[in-house]
Amino acid sequence: MTYCLGMLLDAGLVLIADTRTNAGVDNFSCYKKLHCLAEGPDRQVFAASSGSLSVSQSVIALLEEGLPPEDKEEAPRRLAAVTSMFRAAQLVGEAVQIINRKVGAALEAIHINSSVSFLLGGRIGEESPRLFLIYAAGNFIECQPDSPFLQIGETKYGRPILDRSVDMEMPLPDAVKIAFLSFDSAMRSNLGVARPLDMVVMARDRSLPLLTRRIEPDDEYFNDMSLRWARMLHQATLTIPDPPFMVGYGGEEQQRGRGAA
Amino acid sequence: MTYCLGMLLDAGLVLIADTRTNAGVDNFSCYKKLHCLAEGPDRQVFAASSGSLSVSQSVIALLEEGLPPEDKEEAPRRLAAVTSMFRAAQLVGEAVQIINRKVGAALEAIHINSSVSFLLGGRIGEESPRLFLIYAAGNFIECQPDSPFLQIGETKYGRPILDRSVDMEMPLPDAVKIAFLSFDSAMRSNLGVARPLDMVVMARDRSLPLLTRRIEPDDEYFNDMSLRWARMLHQATLTIPDPPFMVGYGGEEQQRGRGAA
Repeated sequence: MTYCLGMLLDAGLVLIADTRTNAGVDNFSCYKKLHCLAEGPDRQVFAASSGSLSVSQSVIALLEEGLPPEDKEEAPRRLAAVTSMFRAAQLVGEAVQIINRKVGAALEAIHINSSVSFLLGGRIGEESPRLFLIYAAGNFIECQPDSPFLQIGETKYGRPILDRSVDMEMPLPDAVKIAFLSFDSAMRSNLGVARPLDMVVMARDRSLPLLTRRIEPDDEYFNDMSLRWARMLHQATLTIPDPPFMVGYGGEEQQRGRGAA
Repeated sequence: MTYCLGMLLDAGLVLIADTRTNAGVDNFSCYKKLHCLAEGPDRQVFAASSGSLSVSQSVIALLEEGLPPEDKEEAPRRLAAVTSMFRAAQLVGEAVQIINRKVGAALEAIHINSSVSFLLGGRIGEESPRLFLIYAAGNFIECQPDSPFLQIGETKYGRPILDRSVDMEMPLPDAVKIAFLSFDSAMRSNLGVARPLDMVVMARDRSLPLLTRRIEPDDEYFNDMSLRWARMLHQATLTIPDPPFMVGYGGEEQQRGRGAA
């Protein structure tokens, strides 16, 4: 399993991926799933992957080597040369389709799910940061302000906090906090999602440096946040009044205790 | 889609089901999925269903009519006559298998998922309340103190709050609150889960009456709880300190504002 989350806000782009892979519960490993695909003075392109590790690694490797040129005379097509994030998403989609043709059918034949998906985020040239979700067939969607985040992998456990809290106008530190809380939920409920987490934060403001960081299992900030969150959730449930139709079903002493406090 | 949740705590049993069914997004309906299967001076047996509505309705109808007797001379086998909740779970499982044999293959042939699952809760004779999850094949598991809740249907969105908060020793009103918060999360993130919710609360203490209730879409308590919860989550995220490695990435003014408040 995997969980990857991208947020595209007024303040910039946040992209986070966990590192757990597993083939059954008896075969866990740690693999980096957040990759830098292109970096230069005019571009910073990152991708987070979910799905078959063999397929996603092949897609990344093919993108590094370059896709076959459309005209034999030309050079292989690379992300280092595309002129926009839209073109980058097209190239990644095409790489997915090429690898699907090479190994997809063979994997399906032995009933192994070969599908992969990618979150592709970054900036090329004068563009603002952009974020895309590339599906298993190589088609893709772009993140838009009405739904300023995209998820792949084990998306559901970590979604309620996003649905309730993500806001286009939030500062990047708040966005990262909420992203961490979303990962905290996913990791608690699914053993297939786990730290280390890899993250990249790209502020829209070009004067701020690109932030990349790995959050280890013993990360103090993350652990403190998780503890505080659990405590606050517990406190919040106590603060909500009991259902009025449940008077007499217990909890009254506790209620009185709270009233007296 | 559907979401049903059962909790079996020291204080008693809580069973809640939503009422939304859909065949595609263009065909929504409201059907009761929490059924009273047996009620009498010595028994109260309830089931919540998830999956193919035609199959689950047939299972319930078959249980009402009674399953074929093992000996032709005998009366049909009914939940009104079984001697324990374990026997009740066996009978429901057998009903699932019978209906599967009648229509399962026909549905699979036209690529319609015919699987159903049930949460079966209640009490028979001198037993304490018990809770079972009956799978699509008719096999089942019983809820145990180490994991004092069971879910069927769209289980993931509403799970983090349960993993963090459900506690064997909590009073029934707190359990119902947490169950409602779990439904609130599922309903926000999946249109296939919606009010009205049907609920039944069976206190272990036999002096307390069985509580059954429908929570309508305009239920004041539920709406107030949902609002308070959203507000408290927002407040909680603000209270958690910003990640130390994100100093300079915005949000400082907000931080100062909080400090001054």
